[in-house]
Amino acid sequence: MRHRFVPYAVGAFVGFVVALLIRLEASASLKASRNEAETKSQRLVCLVTPTHARPQQKAELTRLSYAFRLAGRVHWIVVEDAESPSALVSRLLADSGLSYTHLTAVTPEKYKLGANDPNWLKPRGVLQRNAALRFLRSRAAQSGLVDDDAVVYFADDDNTYDIRLFNEMRQTKKVSVWPVGLAGGLMVERPIVVDGRVKRFNSVFRPDRPYPIDMAAFAVSLKLIRERPTVLFSLNVQRGYQESHLLTQLLTGWEELEPRADNGNKVLVWHTRTELPNLTPEAKLPVPSNKDIEV
Amino acid sequence: MRHRFVPYAVGAFVGFVVALLIRLEASASLKASRNEAETKSQRLVCLVTPTHARPQQKAELTRLSYAFRLAGRVHWIVVEDAESPSALVSRLLADSGLSYTHLTAVTPEKYKLGANDPNWLKPRGVLQRNAALRFLRSRAAQSGLVDDDAVVYFADDDNTYDIRLFNEMRQTKKVSVWPVGLAGGLMVERPIVVDGRVKRFNSVFRPDRPYPIDMAAFAVSLKLIRERPTVLFSLNVQRGYQESHLLTQLLTGWEELEPRADNGNKVLVWHTRTELPNLTPEAKLPVPSNKDIEV
Repeated sequence: MRHRFVPYAVGAFVGFVVALLIRLEASASLKASRNEAETKSQRLVCLVTPTHARPQQKAELTRLSYAFRLAGRVHWIVVEDAESPSALVSRLLADSGLSYTHLTAVTPEKYKLGANDPNWLKPRGVLQRNAALRFLRSRAAQSGLVDDDAVVYFADDDNTYDIRLFNEMRQTKKVSVWPVGLAGGLMVERPIVVDGRVKRFNSVFRPDRPYPIDMAAFAVSLKLIRERPTVLFSLNVQRGYQESHLLTQLLTGWEELEPRADNGNKVLVWHTRTELPNLTPEAKLPVPSNKDIEV
Repeated sequence: MRHRFVPYAVGAFVGFVVALLIRLEASASLKASRNEAETKSQRLVCLVTPTHARPQQKAELTRLSYAFRLAGRVHWIVVEDAESPSALVSRLLADSGLSYTHLTAVTPEKYKLGANDPNWLKPRGVLQRNAALRFLRSRAAQSGLVDDDAVVYFADDDNTYDIRLFNEMRQTKKVSVWPVGLAGGLMVERPIVVDGRVKRFNSVFRPDRPYPIDMAAFAVSLKLIRERPTVLFSLNVQRGYQESHLLTQLLTGWEELEPRADNGNKVLVWHTRTELPNLTPEAKLPVPSNKDIEV
């Protein structure tokens, strides 16, 4: 009996080896495949970016999209300060290769900065971030684009992000916090951590704020945002108090903050801002230099 | 005779199918593997980036490195304006995942901008770009990091690059040229192309320059740079004439320029600049906020 199976077994072995040899060609790509699988199992980070039309907008969103492409599993929620989605942002998002949601929310005229106002005079991005919070609480689940287990980060379009920051925030239970470079008048504005707990902040701009930190300094679990369904940013808080306004509604105190980025010793995000370009010659042209060209 | 081979053949078929089924798992990654192979056969782009120490340097080089990571096959030549390589730039390059060369070249004190000088007062990046040109003419070939067939692009660390620009420059025969957003006082400074030839430029800043374009507006084949071994930038040319100084030594006229980016109708690079952060509070601190922390 046994003897009859030998030819089958030998044949099966030979066939298997032949197929295996053919398969060798694909071996290098197995690693890539494994990385893809790892990305798929990564915790989702929802990046909330308020944006408004200005000469350097496309440039800023372009380089932002490249950091996000390298950031692992993310969903980009871009909220325009506009009545309806602009063609520029719509195209950029479609071309980005990222999973995204495109929203709009208009800031009323009386809350908008004038051309010559300093950038801190009026609240910025408030209604846009709130639109994202509402989306994350209601439509996001139905859209299938956002997991219940996600982390939410308010990623402004002018900041600079080290992609290692996104893995730091993937560990968030309630609220994570970390240093921000070039923020609050300092080279680095940061939590001071003792025995794994946030002891104080080194902020010099209004250090008496409940949470004296920048918008780029923290991430929140989506679960916590959904557990407090009325928590929003506000048009009626003092300059520099948006972060505190949000966090005091979400947390009982500093002891709940989870320090990341090597216990607050690594800078993985910078508060950069792009200069408004000098467009005085442009203003004098009879025909705009960008007629029929998107810049 | 035939009959004796049937069990072997059946076995071989079964073995082959089993191995094939196992191989299915790797099928998705075959595409990734093919992309990798394509990247390897891509024409090399040498990116020359002069840089100098300043508060926002690491942020700018970080986001620049992300665009370059997505740009296909590139070699990044970073030239510090410093006596010796800094730890910050050395670490950043080592962490970047990019193929790179790290050089230094010091700008003599009398050619350096003062803290309150306007940025155009003195030439910038001249000796750093020249160090890269010398490297590309001599040591590059021996290093094995640069192909003879490469394209050279002067990619400053404050500009913003659409990654599609790098494939445009991969088609360069001698010198390619394309629009730059937010340059020269205009929304877009660009070559005006008629019948595939550069007819004029829309520059309003010194339009009488031989090549009235920005450093970000062109790429040169390494072959051409090696064929003209004495061509360099200069500390002794008028403001805004560096590009013209180089190109007049490389070309006989506009007819040799190769228009790219949809015949000069697409903006794939922007002349952005990051604001110097306000560090007035930092200057008053007894201990710097970034003591023992790299920002």
